[in-house]
Amino acid sequence: MREHYHEQLDGIRDQLVTMTKLVADAMGRATHALLDADLAAAESVIASDTDIDVVADQVEAEALDLIALQAPVASELRTLVGALRMSATLERMGDLAEHLAQIARNNYPSSAVPPELTATIREMGDLAVRLVFEDGDIIANLDVEHALRMETEDDRMDELQRELMARLLADDWPHSVETAIEMAMAVRFYERFADHSVSVARRIVHQATGQRPERIEQA
Amino acid sequence: MREHYHEQLDGIRDQLVTMTKLVADAMGRATHALLDADLAAAESVIASDTDIDVVADQVEAEALDLIALQAPVASELRTLVGALRMSATLERMGDLAEHLAQIARNNYPSSAVPPELTATIREMGDLAVRLVFEDGDIIANLDVEHALRMETEDDRMDELQRELMARLLADDWPHSVETAIEMAMAVRFYERFADHSVSVARRIVHQATGQRPERIEQA
Repeated sequence: MREHYHEQLDGIRDQLVTMTKLVADAMGRATHALLDADLAAAESVIASDTDIDVVADQVEAEALDLIALQAPVASELRTLVGALRMSATLERMGDLAEHLAQIARNNYPSSAVPPELTATIREMGDLAVRLVFEDGDIIANLDVEHALRMETEDDRMDELQRELMARLLADDWPHSVETAIEMAMAVRFYERFADHSVSVARRIVHQATGQRPERIEQA
Repeated sequence: MREHYHEQLDGIRDQLVTMTKLVADAMGRATHALLDADLAAAESVIASDTDIDVVADQVEAEALDLIALQAPVASELRTLVGALRMSATLERMGDLAEHLAQIARNNYPSSAVPPELTATIREMGDLAVRLVFEDGDIIANLDVEHALRMETEDDRMDELQRELMARLLADDWPHSVETAIEMAMAVRFYERFADHSVSVARRIVHQATGQRPERIEQA
């Protein structure tokens, strides 16, 4: 019974890692759809969001079953509640990739991104994919050191956000108001995505140590 | 022991109702700050977001204690997990009110809202406050009928969103790109807030019946 229980705990961890891969894949395709006006890529991100939701529902159902049936002790309860939280966060990250794909689809056959913003959006997209892949490593290895480093790794996203917003708000913005609004939304989605990826890493710190990351950093 | 346990469950429900009141209050003040360029109101919403977070943390801690100590049966586990979810959602609704207050603060001493959009934003704000007050009633009375009605009550928010976006995107938009971006963000925050308020109502349906709202509606 206990052995089966630990297999179930491992299974939940594997499903969370699977979610990070699905989300990374969705985010990569969403950025590609946005930059290259690839309608098929946009549609595939929108369609495959259901796959992410299905895994999230499985994680939730299994974690709740284990909580109800096994009356887990403190550290195991933390793991299970952490899994519930992380799956909810990863599901929201998938939704953000889907929102980006919707912007791409709305603009088809044009690209949603004006040429002078392409490099910045590409870097935001690459960084977003890297951050959620890091979440996957951190979850798979319960890697607290790595999780703590994530705290600063999204700083670059904030820089890119400021840079892009300054362009949108410049007096000589040469494009439409609609394009400015869509780019502002896109930037917000990338920035939220990065925030969520850091919060996943924080959950692992909490799960592994029972402490909040800010306390460990100060220590 | 069991009696104390049921008191604790009631206490968690009361704290969720308190959260709905705090969030309604924050949303009301945020809309006022936005429309009337009231800096003190904006600052108070931003400062009081911590109060909402504190209650959310209490709900989380108490719900997890009860799950760990009482090994609750199916319907009680659903209540406790539902409380975790609802407190997370209400916390995010508080964050959305805070984002609106930040827009108000950024524009001070001007109003963030151009005069011709005032009536629409006011209606969105009033509707948002009403929806979260309804959440409070639904939680306090476990009112499934009322919760099911919420499904259509945010339709008006979607209408207002479309109406306002059409104005921002009209060829003769007379204001700056920055104002358009801020209004588009504000509209998005109101719309997300309404979505979250519906999701709180859905949780109560699930908690009271063990079924998802869409299944009950079909029945």
